[in-house]
Amino acid sequence: MTIHFIKEVNLLKDMILELSGRVEDQLGRAVRSVMNRDVSAAQQVLEDDHAIDQNEVDVEEECLKILALYQPVAHDLRFIIAVLKINNDLERIGDLAVNIAERTLFLSSLPTATTSFDFPAMAMKSQMMVRQSLDALLRQDIDLAIRVREADDEVDEMNREMYEQIKQGIRKEPDRVDALIHLLSISRHLERVADHATNIAEDVIYMIKGEIVRHRPEPRLE
Amino acid sequence: MTIHFIKEVNLLKDMILELSGRVEDQLGRAVRSVMNRDVSAAQQVLEDDHAIDQNEVDVEEECLKILALYQPVAHDLRFIIAVLKINNDLERIGDLAVNIAERTLFLSSLPTATTSFDFPAMAMKSQMMVRQSLDALLRQDIDLAIRVREADDEVDEMNREMYEQIKQGIRKEPDRVDALIHLLSISRHLERVADHATNIAEDVIYMIKGEIVRHRPEPRLE
Repeated sequence: MTIHFIKEVNLLKDMILELSGRVEDQLGRAVRSVMNRDVSAAQQVLEDDHAIDQNEVDVEEECLKILALYQPVAHDLRFIIAVLKINNDLERIGDLAVNIAERTLFLSSLPTATTSFDFPAMAMKSQMMVRQSLDALLRQDIDLAIRVREADDEVDEMNREMYEQIKQGIRKEPDRVDALIHLLSISRHLERVADHATNIAEDVIYMIKGEIVRHRPEPRLE
Repeated sequence: MTIHFIKEVNLLKDMILELSGRVEDQLGRAVRSVMNRDVSAAQQVLEDDHAIDQNEVDVEEECLKILALYQPVAHDLRFIIAVLKINNDLERIGDLAVNIAERTLFLSSLPTATTSFDFPAMAMKSQMMVRQSLDALLRQDIDLAIRVREADDEVDEMNREMYEQIKQGIRKEPDRVDALIHLLSISRHLERVADHATNIAEDVIYMIKGEIVRHRPEPRLE
């Protein structure tokens, strides 16, 4: 069983890598579509979402298969459960990339609204959190996972700042309300991307800590 | 094992019932806090969120315990995995109740902004979807789960309508932008509540359909 089990887990890791690669690509493309008002990049994001949905279903099926065939316990069980949950978060990040790309399509038909908000900084921070949360998973790196969780506060703060900018913008140019509210939505979508990265990081922490608790030297009375 | 396993699953069902009861209460209170501009109800929602977080951790631990001790397969495995995922959605609905209640606190210090949008209808629809998705889980009722999924389109449409109302409101009264954007946020939070109810319904469908596929009479070549 052990060799087969390790093979299956490696397959699962490859599948999560494929999914996360796709999700990162989609998010990057969505962000660039906003920055460059690139309609065709945005449309590409919309078209490619189905591949992520398929990956998500495949990962879940693989997890269920491993659980049913190998009935793992302890660390192995916790790893599979973490992957199941992280799979979900990745798929939602993919959906948020679609939501962001949709805003590009709306924005492209509207006159430009200017804010002094640093969108690229927020986008980069959120993308980095996604990347690091996945690295933390694959390397089982609890310190990196903790750093991701801390970064979430910064993105929340950026979102609040965006919100203030948007309100000021609307007061100054009420006829630009459409474009400004689309920008607000994009900021919120990025904030939710960061939330999902934080979920992933917390699952990694929980998985590793659960392991530590389980392995503590004192015997437990139950 | 069987009797012990059934006992554990019944315990798990009780735990999910407790969690979902709390989540429904919190959501209901958050909605009423908006309608009545009831600051103390809103504060209560903020204070009670920790109980939901604790319930979520307990449900997850119970699922992991069942998986490790009884190594269920087939329908039983699928049920536990569905509960694990639904647990997550319920906790997020709890978070959204908190987000809605926070908006009540912001709104209470602002002059009232009027929209002709039917907030109670949207709130009631979203709450009903949550209730029905949980009924579908506990009764394993695929038809009800399908109805929940269909209702999601209506809530999306209500959210779009709210968005139009808000834009018109801002054009008419740009100095009321703060209150109006809070109302927009509440509408979006409700739309996400409906999304989570839809996720729960889809997990129920997937769980039951997976079972049907597995039990179909033709033998499968693999």
